[in-house]
Amino acid sequence: MSRVPKAHPRAESLRVRERLVDGFKSGLVVPEGLTAHGRGEAFDYILGERTSKFARRAIEAAVAEMLLAERPVISVNGNVAALVPAEIVTLARLVGAKVEVNLFHGSKKREMAIAKYLRTHGAREVHGVDLKFATQIPEVNSDRQKVDRRGIAASDVVLIPLEDGDRAEALTKLGKRVIAIDLNPMSRTSRAADIAIVDSITRSLPLMIKTAKGLSQKPREKLQKIMKKFDNNANLNASLRFMLERLENLSRG
Amino acid sequence: MSRVPKAHPRAESLRVRERLVDGFKSGLVVPEGLTAHGRGEAFDYILGERTSKFARRAIEAAVAEMLLAERPVISVNGNVAALVPAEIVTLARLVGAKVEVNLFHGSKKREMAIAKYLRTHGAREVHGVDLKFATQIPEVNSDRQKVDRRGIAASDVVLIPLEDGDRAEALTKLGKRVIAIDLNPMSRTSRAADIAIVDSITRSLPLMIKTAKGLSQKPREKLQKIMKKFDNNANLNASLRFMLERLENLSRG
Repeated sequence: MSRVPKAHPRAESLRVRERLVDGFKSGLVVPEGLTAHGRGEAFDYILGERTSKFARRAIEAAVAEMLLAERPVISVNGNVAALVPAEIVTLARLVGAKVEVNLFHGSKKREMAIAKYLRTHGAREVHGVDLKFATQIPEVNSDRQKVDRRGIAASDVVLIPLEDGDRAEALTKLGKRVIAIDLNPMSRTSRAADIAIVDSITRSLPLMIKTAKGLSQKPREKLQKIMKKFDNNANLNASLRFMLERLENLSRG
Repeated sequence: MSRVPKAHPRAESLRVRERLVDGFKSGLVVPEGLTAHGRGEAFDYILGERTSKFARRAIEAAVAEMLLAERPVISVNGNVAALVPAEIVTLARLVGAKVEVNLFHGSKKREMAIAKYLRTHGAREVHGVDLKFATQIPEVNSDRQKVDRRGIAASDVVLIPLEDGDRAEALTKLGKRVIAIDLNPMSRTSRAADIAIVDSITRSLPLMIKTAKGLSQKPREKLQKIMKKFDNNANLNASLRFMLERLENLSRG
């Protein structure tokens, strides 16, 4: 049962936060994850807590990219697992992607807890938790990033919902195609990505699933066309302008 | 010792967050407080992590208001205690204000921990922790708000650094003059307040102390003049326009 009063003007946002706090209490989420979520909330507040048409375009391109990929991987951290565990598993199945636990604040215990949580939500295989398959990739400003030899290390396309800027840049430098979900259109993650979806993961994952169901019926050429016409910089600037207009309207109100 | 790498592009923000996470680990801060801090970080990022001239004006008016007040009170929650405990005590002394622990997510244990933490930072008297003096004020959308009979209940001016919109509105409805510190110029707290300081508490508290030292030497008429010329709505709109300009510049960069 939710502890959020139904009448609260921002009940949905509070319910999502509550789910995250529950994830924190059960060991999936670290304190830093709660703070990061709050940052997202502020940008979402400016966005009007709705998926923009620019986010919809990015979602379409992202799903096309994942369907066309040879070895797509979805990278999962504590916040992602706590907020959209079943959606991650469903999307991975629909686009043929592997699921890998990849943590900025890593610990064996938390990795295992997240993998277990994903399994209870239907995941058959979860990478990133078996040291036997661990390898490292170079990363600026922090420890080297541990990845799975069978997962991110071997991937061509990586979906990183909620990722740090250094890690996003590290992946693009390795030649991976990177799809980010990030509510800040100015973040290094959004700018480093090939496709950045400026939206909350609780809204965009269900939309990605719906889009994957539709696009998986389409011919390869159609998907390539969608992918090629997407321009991440132009889309990010449009998202930012959209947020600016929202702020301008709010400032008049 | 800070765990933040000095070279990180946003080291100061990370150090503040670290102090909050430490406060969380020692039981001052709740998970929801970490999320709330993250929201502030995002707005501060847009502000450029600097105190604007509009915030400086609000600070001047706020300090004048507190110096003129009969029974000013500073309301302290977990985040405030974790981030600026000594500054709260110093400001209270300079303006003759009482300090009251007032929690949105209340618990006896946390109240006591916060009061103790304030005492180790020099507070002689901390209100809000003795049930003998507890009374309640009406509040929309949540449980009634517990306040101290000798503190907030009897106050004419309340400083609420980091407060929920419902609580801020409840105080203004009771006829209190409300001074808020809130990084979101569109929040209900900022709009409900008589004076809203759109700035981080880690920057604005030291500035309030400096201002209190200066203004306490001034005649009463001078303080009244400062107070009367302040227009909260105009100041909030100016703050918002300032943020808009920042976003516009960021979007060009």
